[in-house]
Parts: sequence; C-alpha cells; structure tokens
Amino acid sequence: MAGILERYRNFYDFPADFPIISLNEGNTPLIPAPKISAEVSRLSGQPDVQVFLKFEGLNPTGSFKDRGMTYAVSKAVADGHTHIICASTGNTSAAAAAYGARAGLKTLIILPGGKVALGKLSQAIMYGAAIVEIDGNFDQALDIVRALGETGKVCVVNSINPYRLQGQKTGAFELCDVLGDAPDDLYIPVGNAGNISAYWMGFKEYADKGISSKRPRMCGYQAAGAAPIVHGHKIEKPETLATAIRIGNPASWQLAEAARDDSGGRIDCVTDPQIVAAYQFLASREGVLCEPSSAASVAGLFKAASLSQVQANSTIVCVLTGNGLKDPDSAIEYGNPQRAQLPADSDQVAAFFGL
Amino acid sequence: MAGILERYRNFYDFPADFPIISLNEGNTPLIPAPKISAEVSRLSGQPDVQVFLKFEGLNPTGSFKDRGMTYAVSKAVADGHTHIICASTGNTSAAAAAYGARAGLKTLIILPGGKVALGKLSQAIMYGAAIVEIDGNFDQALDIVRALGETGKVCVVNSINPYRLQGQKTGAFELCDVLGDAPDDLYIPVGNAGNISAYWMGFKEYADKGISSKRPRMCGYQAAGAAPIVHGHKIEKPETLATAIRIGNPASWQLAEAARDDSGGRIDCVTDPQIVAAYQFLASREGVLCEPSSAASVAGLFKAASLSQVQANSTIVCVLTGNGLKDPDSAIEYGNPQRAQLPADSDQVAAFFGL
Repeated sequence: MAGILERYRNFYDFPADFPIISLNEGNTPLIPAPKISAEVSRLSGQPDVQVFLKFEGLNPTGSFKDRGMTYAVSKAVADGHTHIICASTGNTSAAAAAYGARAGLKTLIILPGGKVALGKLSQAIMYGAAIVEIDGNFDQALDIVRALGETGKVCVVNSINPYRLQGQKTGAFELCDVLGDAPDDLYIPVGNAGNISAYWMGFKEYADKGISSKRPRMCGYQAAGAAPIVHGHKIEKPETLATAIRIGNPASWQLAEAARDDSGGRIDCVTDPQIVAAYQFLASREGVLCEPSSAASVAGLFKAASLSQVQANSTIVCVLTGNGLKDPDSAIEYGNPQRAQLPADSDQVAAFFGL
Repeated sequence: MAGILERYRNFYDFPADFPIISLNEGNTPLIPAPKISAEVSRLSGQPDVQVFLKFEGLNPTGSFKDRGMTYAVSKAVADGHTHIICASTGNTSAAAAAYGARAGLKTLIILPGGKVALGKLSQAIMYGAAIVEIDGNFDQALDIVRALGETGKVCVVNSINPYRLQGQKTGAFELCDVLGDAPDDLYIPVGNAGNISAYWMGFKEYADKGISSKRPRMCGYQAAGAAPIVHGHKIEKPETLATAIRIGNPASWQLAEAARDDSGGRIDCVTDPQIVAAYQFLASREGVLCEPSSAASVAGLFKAASLSQVQANSTIVCVLTGNGLKDPDSAIEYGNPQRAQLPADSDQVAAFFGL
C-alpha cells in the first residue's frame, strides 16, 4: 500500500509533480485490546467498553513521526533544500534521518543530553545523520534549531514546520476508515503536543466532509514530571522516564488546548509508576510492546476509568506512538522474567521450566 | 486490517470456531528501492530492473515470524495446550512470547549462548516469557526443544511445527496482491530455511489457483560462515555476525532445496562484509533499517548482479525479515556518523554542522 500522501491525496493541495519522498508509512494496525477493555470496565463499572490500540510503532522508523516527515521532507525537496535539521528526544530524529537519507539530503540532528533511548540513537547513526548531543534539554535544543533555521541554510523539520501536523492528521483518517466512524474517545500521549493537535485536525476534516458522523473526545496525557499544559505553566526541568514526552514547553501548546476544549476532552497527567504499569500490562497481557512514553495513553485510560470518566458502550482508541524496540533498556529494566543460564542439557532445562 | 488468518481464510481449513490469536500481523509494506535498482543495473549491465523491499520488520513483534506464530499459537490454544516452547536466535522467541502472552499461555524459550541481539532479548523479557540461555548453539537448543516436546507437556512452536510455515506463506500472497502478479525473482535470507520454503508454498498455491501467472525464481542466501545448504553438509560451529541466520543444520533443509530446484533458483552465500555493506546501503541510501541478517537478501542480489545472474526488465523482491531496531548494537557499530557533544550554544552547533 502506498504512503499517506498518495492514499489521502484528496486532503492535500500539493501539485501533481510534487516529489513525494515516502517509505510507505501509515497503514498501521488497529489492534483490539480485550484485556484492557475488561480492565477498564472493571475499574469504571461501565460495561461494553471496546478498546483498540493504534500501533504507530509499526511505521517504517518505528513511530508516528513518519506520517509528518514524509510531507515535511517532500516539501524540503520541492523547495530545493539540501539540509534538514531537527531537535529531538529521538523519534523525530530517526524519522528525519531516514527520510532525509532517502531523499539524498543531509540531516542535522540536535539531541538533549543523556536521555535518548538507545534504539533511537542507533537509528540516527545508521541512517547517516550528523548528530550533536547538547548539554541541555529538549526545549533548549529546539531553541537552537529555531535559531539555525532563521539563517535560511537549513529546513527545520520539527513540528513547528506545518507540514508535519498536516501529515500526522492521517492517523485520525485511518482510525475512522477501519472503525467505520470516529471513536468516542481518543487517548494519546502529549509531549510537544503536535500529535493530539494533528489527530484533532484529521477528525474535524473527516466530520466536516461527512465521512465520519462524530468527533471524539480528545484525551491527552502528559507525564506528571513534564506536565506544563496540566499545570498551566512551562516546566523548566521536565523529568520522566518517558523520554519521548519529556518536554517542558510544548511547541503546539495552544493547538492542544483548543483540541481539548473544542472536543469536550481533557489533558491530564499520569505518574511514572502508572506509565510503567501500563507498559507492562500492554506487553505481558496484550502482547504489544510499545515504548514507555506510548503507554501514557493506556495509563491515562486506566486513570480515567478509575475517575468515572469512561462511559458505557463506548469505543475508545489508545494511540501507541512508538515501538518498544526503540528502548530495549527499559524493557530489560521493567520486564520481570523467569531467567537462567544453563548447560545444553535437556534434563536441567526441563527442571528449570518445571516440566 | 485483520491478521493473516482472517484475510486469507480461504487458504486454510481451520473450523469456523477456531480461536484465532492475532496481533493484526502481516500487511507489511512493499517499499520501492530506486537506489538498489540502479545499483543492480550498474553491477549487472541490465536495464530496467525494478527492486522492491518486503519489509517484514514492520510486523507486530518486528519480524516475519509473526505470520507463522499466529497460526501455531492459535492451534496450541485450540488443542488445549497451556505451555508453548521454542529454541530461537531471538526473533522466534519474541513472536512466541508475544502471542503466548496474548493467548494467556506460558511461553518457554531456549536461547543459544551469547549471540542474541539486545532488542530481541528485551522483547522476550517484557512479554513475560521464561528464558533459558544455554551454553550451546541454536542447533543444540532445538534438540532440547524436540526432546521436551516429546514429553507432551508443551507445544513446540519452532518451524518444525507445520502451522508456522502455513502462516508464513502469506508473505508470498501479499507480494502478489500488491504487484498484481508474482515477481520474477525473490531474494531471501536462509537460516533455518523455513521462510524460503513457506514463500515457495505460497507462490505455488497462488499460481495453481490462477491468481498469479507465474512463479518466481527462489534465490536464497546464507551467511558464508553458516552455509550448510551451499556446502552440502552440516556446519558444527556456524559463525556470522548475522545472528538470526547463524544456523548450521536447518530444520527445513529439504524443503528449501526443493524450492530452489523446482523454481530454477539458487541458494548461495554472502560474506559478513557483504552483509554489512548491504545493511549500510539500505539504511543510508534507501532509509530502511533492517537487522543485519535481513540484509543478506540485498547482499545476495548485489552478488548475483555482479555474476550476471540478473535479467533485464525483471521485477525483484528482497525480503527484509526483521527490524533493525532489534539490534541497536550493530547499528551503532556499523553506522558512520558525524557526531559531537557540545554545550547548548547555537554558534558552536552551527560551526560543527558547517552552517
């Protein structure tokens, strides 16, 4: 299946000769989550809640960022740029480096110090980007990107580039296409706040065109230590193990608040232990391994269920933004295996397994 | 989109009440590879070669193994098993642990010592499997699994379980569905030799039913240090950096030879440096990060092009069996980045990037 710009061409106004740079992103699975559904019903006391997981970790570079990057990089090529640049907690840089490589552009990446998951760093390296790790956080990295962007020598592909959100809105389209209508509620992690804004844009477009009959409540979840929208002010030193949403001054702050208010939704926060519990539940009960930050959506749903914010007979989608393989260290830290090293002897192995 | 057993239900004879355990596997992208196509034309002197990448790394657990595991685990549930077991270089264990978790079964895993990629190990841990790492290689691990399977207490889900290959044949179906016919040549890594056998089964079924007009040449590639089929004898101590195909006594040896001979294809080998070169080409030129073993297919195609084994005007598919995120250490080792640590200062960052 073609990538999102070809599949949803009618929702864009680029010219016929637009140079589409695509890795056949999108078309990610919507996986039923029977065990999460049961848990939500148990916590909320509401029957017949149907939960689905939009597993964006199965995009070509392992996160939802690919949907926006195909458009941003295509536009950079169309405009004659030779260099693209971004600040990143890891997923944006992986996507930029991959699409940049495919387009034959030079990709420049600025990472915050010390908190980028191993898999994401390995991607930027292997795709051939130039990488600077700064002694500072994501927000400082983005400030530098903005400054370098103003020189006109590089094309900024962070989500302040409007083509990013325009691409990401296709996540909402796909949900509606598969479900036959919009869900009742969308649960989604909030970091830089671009994705919740983009999904809302997509849901509005589908409803305005009559393709869907309704618009979902947008329920965004920040990490408790990095929750500027919840608290109503910037967080100077955001802290959370959910590194992909460790952002104290979201670029799409106003758009996210508008999505929340227009949809009758909410933006709330979940603690690191709640995120880890959801991350473990997803892997060990549903068989879906996302990155810790992605589990903020499911952690938020569990919290909402406990607070009686979930309605009976509702269809709920949780967006899982990134692939758990991006963060093997967290999986090893938070997994709880029965594990041993043994000689190659079937009796000893059988004994260990209790067979 | 539903998983492979529902989508291709007509190609199976399971009953209507069969308990399908699925993560919506399959439906992976077929990505055009313009730069590989040009390189193959350059090496071979043959014009108009069109190469596509079947990126199986975008299955739910990051490898093609999910296609077979959905069927094997569903059958285990149907048969009333409570435990599944496998030997694995990593990908099979990840798939078994995920589908086992989803089905509520206990998953037992035996890994060869010291050569399982970090991401794969992290998966088995996070999905909640019981894991034994033996002091021995894959072939010894499989021997133990066979022995424990004979007790009747556990269901073996290695590819000696016939449902595995039956599921994996859908990779061939999807290729034909997207291309409109079978390709001329299929290039595929060969380790335990189940996948080449399964693809051939799928291509034959589609041709027999008249859905495709032809059957491709099956071109399988082993790693030079683990090439028992090429050499015609078991390899006692297989060695290659391509850990997923580090196998000296393939379970599906005869089936793979039959696929080769019936299709007019070949099984050859590629060296570790050839595998690394293809792995780097894929990431830095096409923007596709697979695991090193997967790149054996593209390394094989480059070798074949150099040996005049590629024909003009042919459509070629290279199967990329696993996601590069499964092996971050290899990406960091073989990537070649321009990289620095700097203060959060835009002038210094600009200077490093040459802006």
